[in-house]
Amino acid sequence: MDMKKMAGDKAAEYVKDGMVVGLGTGSTAYHMVNAIGERVKNGLKIQAIPTSKATEAQARELGIPLLTIDEVDHVDLDIDGVDEIDPQFNAIKGGGGALYREKVVATLAKEVIWIMDESKLVDHIGAFHLPVEIAQYGSKQAMARMEEYGWKPVLRVRDGKTFVTDNGNYIADLHLGAGFDIEDVREKLGTIVGVLEHGLFLNMCKRMIVGTSSEGVRVIENPSK
Amino acid sequence: MDMKKMAGDKAAEYVKDGMVVGLGTGSTAYHMVNAIGERVKNGLKIQAIPTSKATEAQARELGIPLLTIDEVDHVDLDIDGVDEIDPQFNAIKGGGGALYREKVVATLAKEVIWIMDESKLVDHIGAFHLPVEIAQYGSKQAMARMEEYGWKPVLRVRDGKTFVTDNGNYIADLHLGAGFDIEDVREKLGTIVGVLEHGLFLNMCKRMIVGTSSEGVRVIENPSK
Repeated sequence: MDMKKMAGDKAAEYVKDGMVVGLGTGSTAYHMVNAIGERVKNGLKIQAIPTSKATEAQARELGIPLLTIDEVDHVDLDIDGVDEIDPQFNAIKGGGGALYREKVVATLAKEVIWIMDESKLVDHIGAFHLPVEIAQYGSKQAMARMEEYGWKPVLRVRDGKTFVTDNGNYIADLHLGAGFDIEDVREKLGTIVGVLEHGLFLNMCKRMIVGTSSEGVRVIENPSK
Repeated sequence: MDMKKMAGDKAAEYVKDGMVVGLGTGSTAYHMVNAIGERVKNGLKIQAIPTSKATEAQARELGIPLLTIDEVDHVDLDIDGVDEIDPQFNAIKGGGGALYREKVVATLAKEVIWIMDESKLVDHIGAFHLPVEIAQYGSKQAMARMEEYGWKPVLRVRDGKTFVTDNGNYIADLHLGAGFDIEDVREKLGTIVGVLEHGLFLNMCKRMIVGTSSEGVRVIENPSK
C-alpha cells in the first residue's frame, strides 16, 4: 500500500463527531481528505477549514462541510503534511507555497497531527529548502539580507514567472543545509523587514503518523504535548 | 510660519549632491518634498525613493528623479514625518497607512531624519494609535490575539470599507495609551502570525527637526547615532 495513503487513512481515524478540523495541503494530505470524506458520507458530523484552494475544492467535492477562516473561532484538530521533520518534532513546511495559511490554521489548533511517508523523517532538517513568505515591495532588500546571512535565498519561480502566494506575496526558498542552527535562523528571520511568515513549524504537533515500507504505519507521540 | 513647513524646509537643507534620498509621506513631508523640488530646479543632483504613491506623484510633478524600490541598493538619507515621538527617539508612524513602505526605506537608510511640528514630541508615546499591518487571511485571529493582550485593536475602515494597504493587507490600530511597555508590545507583536510590520520606529533617527511656535526650528541630535 502507498505510504502516503497509509498515513492519511490512519490520521482520519482521529477525527471525531463535532470537531472543527483543519485540512492540510499536498500529496499526503490528499489521502487524508479523501478518507475523511468517506467517513462524512458514512455519517461523521464535522466542520472543516481548508488550508488552500486545492484542498477546499477537494473537500467540497467530497461533501465535507466547510468554514471560512473568518467563521472559525477554534480548531480542534489540524492534520497536514510536512516536507521534513526531525525527532524533536521540528518541521519544515511550505514546499507547495501554502505555508502561511497552514501556519494560521495550525496555530489555532488545539491538536496537530503531521502525516508523511518515511522519507520525510530525517535526523536534521535543512536538506529541504526553507520557504519564507515575503512582501513584494522591498523583496529585493529582504533577499539581500538573507544572502548576507549566508542562507542562499532563491526567489521562487513557477512557469517562468515569479511565484505569487494566495496572499499576494513572494516566496524566498532558503538553502540552509541539514543541521543548520534552527533557533538562530528563526530569530534572525524575525528581524527582517518584509517577512510575513516562514516554513519552520517547531514542536507544534502532538503526533506524527508515518507510512513506512517495512513496518506499516508508525504513530510517534510527542512526549512534550 | 507654519510649523510643519519650517521643519520640512530645514530638513531639505541636509540633502547633498549625489545622494539617494527617501521621501516620506504626510502633511509635514509634503513641505520637505516641495523644498527639495525647489533645490532640484536650482541644480541639486539627487535620486529619490518615495514611500507612497502620493509622494511619488508629488515628486514626479516637481521633476525630482525617482528610483523604484527594486532599483535601490542603498539610501543615503531618509526624511519622513512621525505621528508621535518621545525623548528617547522612539516613534509611532503609520497614521496614513504607509508604515510598511516607510519602514523598508528607513531601514535601508544610512541616516534618518524625522520632521514634525511640536505637537508630535511627547513624553511617552501611545496616546496615538499604533498601526499594525496584518494579512487579510487570518486577520480575525490576529485581532483576537491583540484583543487578548489588552491592546484594544480596531480594524481600520475608510469610506465605510475595510482599509487595504498598498500591499493588499489590513491595518489594526492599537489603542495602548501613553506610557505603554514598548519592548513588551514589540516582542509580542513578533509572535503573532499574520503581522507583516508595525508602526514602532525605535531609536532609528539621527536627528529630529521640530517646528515650534515659540522658538522657530529646533534640531535635536540623537547622541546614540
